[in-house]
Amino acid sequence: MIRVDLNCDLGESFGAYQLGLDEQLIPMVTSVNIACGFHAGDPGVMHRTVKLALENGVAIGAHPGLPDLVGFGRRSMDISPQDAFDMVLYQIGALDGFVKSEGGSMQHVKPHGALYNMAAKKRELAEAIAKAVYRYNPQLILFGLSGSELIRAGQRIGLRTAGEVFSDRTYQSDGSLTPRNLQDAVITDHDQAIANVVRMVKEGLVQSRQGIDIKIEPDTVCIHGDNAHALVFARQIREALESSSISVRAIGLRG
Amino acid sequence: MIRVDLNCDLGESFGAYQLGLDEQLIPMVTSVNIACGFHAGDPGVMHRTVKLALENGVAIGAHPGLPDLVGFGRRSMDISPQDAFDMVLYQIGALDGFVKSEGGSMQHVKPHGALYNMAAKKRELAEAIAKAVYRYNPQLILFGLSGSELIRAGQRIGLRTAGEVFSDRTYQSDGSLTPRNLQDAVITDHDQAIANVVRMVKEGLVQSRQGIDIKIEPDTVCIHGDNAHALVFARQIREALESSSISVRAIGLRG
Amino acid sequence: MIRVDLNCDLGESFGAYQLGLDEQLIPMVTSVNIACGFHAGDPGVMHRTVKLALENGVAIGAHPGLPDLVGFGRRSMDISPQDAFDMVLYQIGALDGFVKSEGGSMQHVKPHGALYNMAAKKRELAEAIAKAVYRYNPQLILFGLSGSELIRAGQRIGLRTAGEVFSDRTYQSDGSLTPRNLQDAVITDHDQAIANVVRMVKEGLVQSRQGIDIKIEPDTVCIHGDNAHALVFARQIREALESSSISVRAIGLRG
Amino acid sequence: MIRVDLNCDLGESFGAYQLGLDEQLIPMVTSVNIACGFHAGDPGVMHRTVKLALENGVAIGAHPGLPDLVGFGRRSMDISPQDAFDMVLYQIGALDGFVKSEGGSMQHVKPHGALYNMAAKKRELAEAIAKAVYRYNPQLILFGLSGSELIRAGQRIGLRTAGEVFSDRTYQSDGSLTPRNLQDAVITDHDQAIANVVRMVKEGLVQSRQGIDIKIEPDTVCIHGDNAHALVFARQIREALESSSISVRAIGLRG
Repeated sequence: MIRVDLNCDLGESFGAYQLGLDEQLIPMVTSVNIACGFHAGDPGVMHRTVKLALENGVAIGAHPGLPDLVGFGRRSMDISPQDAFDMVLYQIGALDGFVKSEGGSMQHVKPHGALYNMAAKKRELAEAIAKAVYRYNPQLILFGLSGSELIRAGQRIGLRTAGEVFSDRTYQSDGSLTPRNLQDAVITDHDQAIANVVRMVKEGLVQSRQGIDIKIEPDTVCIHGDNAHALVFARQIREALESSSISVRAIGLRG
Repeated sequence: MIRVDLNCDLGESFGAYQLGLDEQLIPMVTSVNIACGFHAGDPGVMHRTVKLALENGVAIGAHPGLPDLVGFGRRSMDISPQDAFDMVLYQIGALDGFVKSEGGSMQHVKPHGALYNMAAKKRELAEAIAKAVYRYNPQLILFGLSGSELIRAGQRIGLRTAGEVFSDRTYQSDGSLTPRNLQDAVITDHDQAIANVVRMVKEGLVQSRQGIDIKIEPDTVCIHGDNAHALVFARQIREALESSSISVRAIGLRG
Repeated sequence: MIRVDLNCDLGESFGAYQLGLDEQLIPMVTSVNIACGFHAGDPGVMHRTVKLALENGVAIGAHPGLPDLVGFGRRSMDISPQDAFDMVLYQIGALDGFVKSEGGSMQHVKPHGALYNMAAKKRELAEAIAKAVYRYNPQLILFGLSGSELIRAGQRIGLRTAGEVFSDRTYQSDGSLTPRNLQDAVITDHDQAIANVVRMVKEGLVQSRQGIDIKIEPDTVCIHGDNAHALVFARQIREALESSSISVRAIGLRG
Repeated sequence: MIRVDLNCDLGESFGAYQLGLDEQLIPMVTSVNIACGFHAGDPGVMHRTVKLALENGVAIGAHPGLPDLVGFGRRSMDISPQDAFDMVLYQIGALDGFVKSEGGSMQHVKPHGALYNMAAKKRELAEAIAKAVYRYNPQLILFGLSGSELIRAGQRIGLRTAGEVFSDRTYQSDGSLTPRNLQDAVITDHDQAIANVVRMVKEGLVQSRQGIDIKIEPDTVCIHGDNAHALVFARQIREALESSSISVRAIGLRG
């Protein structure tokens, strides 16, 4: 039976600041990426989010980001591979403290924002991140953009990887995401987006923005939950996948 | 044979800022407390310091502090026990990421600065810290002021504890340290200080500032290394202990 | 004609984090306290908030806080008077950069959260804050708890001061606010709260929690706007004051 | 009489961390760039550094940087022009709080590190920074790399500008600095470096790394003081300039 993982970002609040609809979003997904205090999240938020994830039976991943709270980790920084190695390792360890203290275990690591985007393209950065994950625990699964340098780096070092696809974005013929500043980067038609996701998972194909079918390996689909609208879309994606006889479950689960 | 541990703070640099004489200090001690990024230290410094500790064969501990880099964690903050639990767990996990990635293991946890001082006196805070350590790994040893609430909290929860004494400070008759704003709080006579340490370790006694012999349990002695002067003093303490037939070794070592 | 100022905190968002209903709250008040980046606010938020204040014709004040974003400046810290002087001066200057660049002028300074509370009771801290305000610009008005050490320190140094009262809090017979951990600290009956405010402004009297009329000098009333409920209450206070022939206007306005 | 300004970075300590030889370096220069708390410096350090500058009679400038303390503001970040405007304005205002409180006045603004380098090449960023300076105070002098976009942006908006040259760096034939990763980027021969500086100031020419004389406008020379070696070099530069009948004085001074 074909299967797929659905993941979302969680635990992005900070101190007095609430962000995201964590409680409502979590039933839609099978894996969650929890912010680790650099671009979002603080120790208290991380602790509560880990508990929430365990109560809901979803798989937990670390979501390390750049040290840029005011920019939410979305601004590229010219960090060295060593910087990337150290900041990823720090954040994985910090989150794992909460996971271990609550009796859980960590399934995966998915870099956040600009770190994710840089790791998709820069081989040395990708290798540093993959190495940090591997050195912490070689059983962890590395999430990255499907077909990216990060996925290749993970595979080279011996990690299990999960190629991520986006339901609301279009792809270029070379398999990369259409940059957001170009027209048609974002798919606004929900039915079209859902049909794309189902086809990617069932057939391993997506039609590029240039009209060509390209191969894609969707191990996990990124789900957003910023507002009520996104939550409805998230539910529709999950229902469409399940009604297409696709098993929606955490990537780390056996069987 | 009587034994004692000598510990020092390490890895207190940050970014471009160098602090401490880590390389020169480390041969004097048997256990090191490594800053975890809140009051000092950053991911790169933590990584290099963990490597340095492993190369020198000293035991590694986490040195969690308050989130106050500009105050170096020395300013008391009115944090809740839950805050303390979460910030300690976060920092232990973060440091352990580097320890695990380098193939080492963590021996102990010693709170830093104002967190150490608050935990010595406030029972609820002490219990939250002890619980964070225990929940992360019940094999960890909790370092705290000898006779403090933190040591008692550690013992109640089932942790192994290490009571810490200071070579350069005088004690009150109730076993507490003489506050720094009082006269005679700091011992400036090295010979006196060294004689005190040897007696504390051999006899379990120290003469209080009021002239009374009080009981003390010195599992580990705090060593400073801020300057060349302190390094000389550190060496003298170690030599005095060893020439008094006291075994100087990390507290977590068997035998 | 009797007059009073209504003030509220503004610009407490940070990066991707939205907090407060600034646009809806601002028409209710005459003076706004803008966060300066230590406990809340960032340069972009500060800039936009200054513009918003100028567009709405309200008077602008700096709202300096402790360097504790995760605790929102609500956790007391054991800072020195020199620390307080320097952090207040830094934040006043930073906010004034935006005020000046937009062609406005700053009316007042009101410390935030734990800094406000500490300055109400600790004379040395109060004096350091008053001195920082005075040294920056002796024309600024210092806002503080009515009858507090901060108000007295401001008066001693030669600043114009504004004693602040709270519509939703009860007072002790010594004029201090009933601590929040005691019963009846917060007034939940809106009609009662509004009657209290009107009486404080008109008669300079409030009935203490112990049932005694005490004197109070309400130059400015603190208004909250955390939610829709608070906005309704804010409007009711303003309407009650205006229908009692009280002139509601910024304290710094002449005439 | 030909004149030139000598500037150095000052006030780069932070909390418990000491950096730089401020007291020894300051007699060598005529203008100082004081860190403003983003890449280095804290309110206490800024206050003490402003006092030190005023006591030594040197001209004061703000030295705003990227919000990256751990990277010392040396790592490029993909900030928007609006981000740059707001962060520069914030930092200028913050420093000016101390300058005003001590009775001084600010002469100039020089961006730090990666912000300086980005502003040298990116026109929109340069314009945002120049606009922030102008909006704060159109009398301020904008320091930037000689011939850079930042200097041009300053001139367009109507600011007085100061083109900066480096004594220890080689230039490309297009007037840009040789990137540090290339050979011969840094001049290690002191005599050669000093001869270059004197010629730049006297003749407005420097021989590029490719062997061609290029024009350069050296209003101010950047002086380093990281160690005892640098201090000697700084003194030699000043002495060589003065013995070549060049007047060494702050750029903002009349006459």
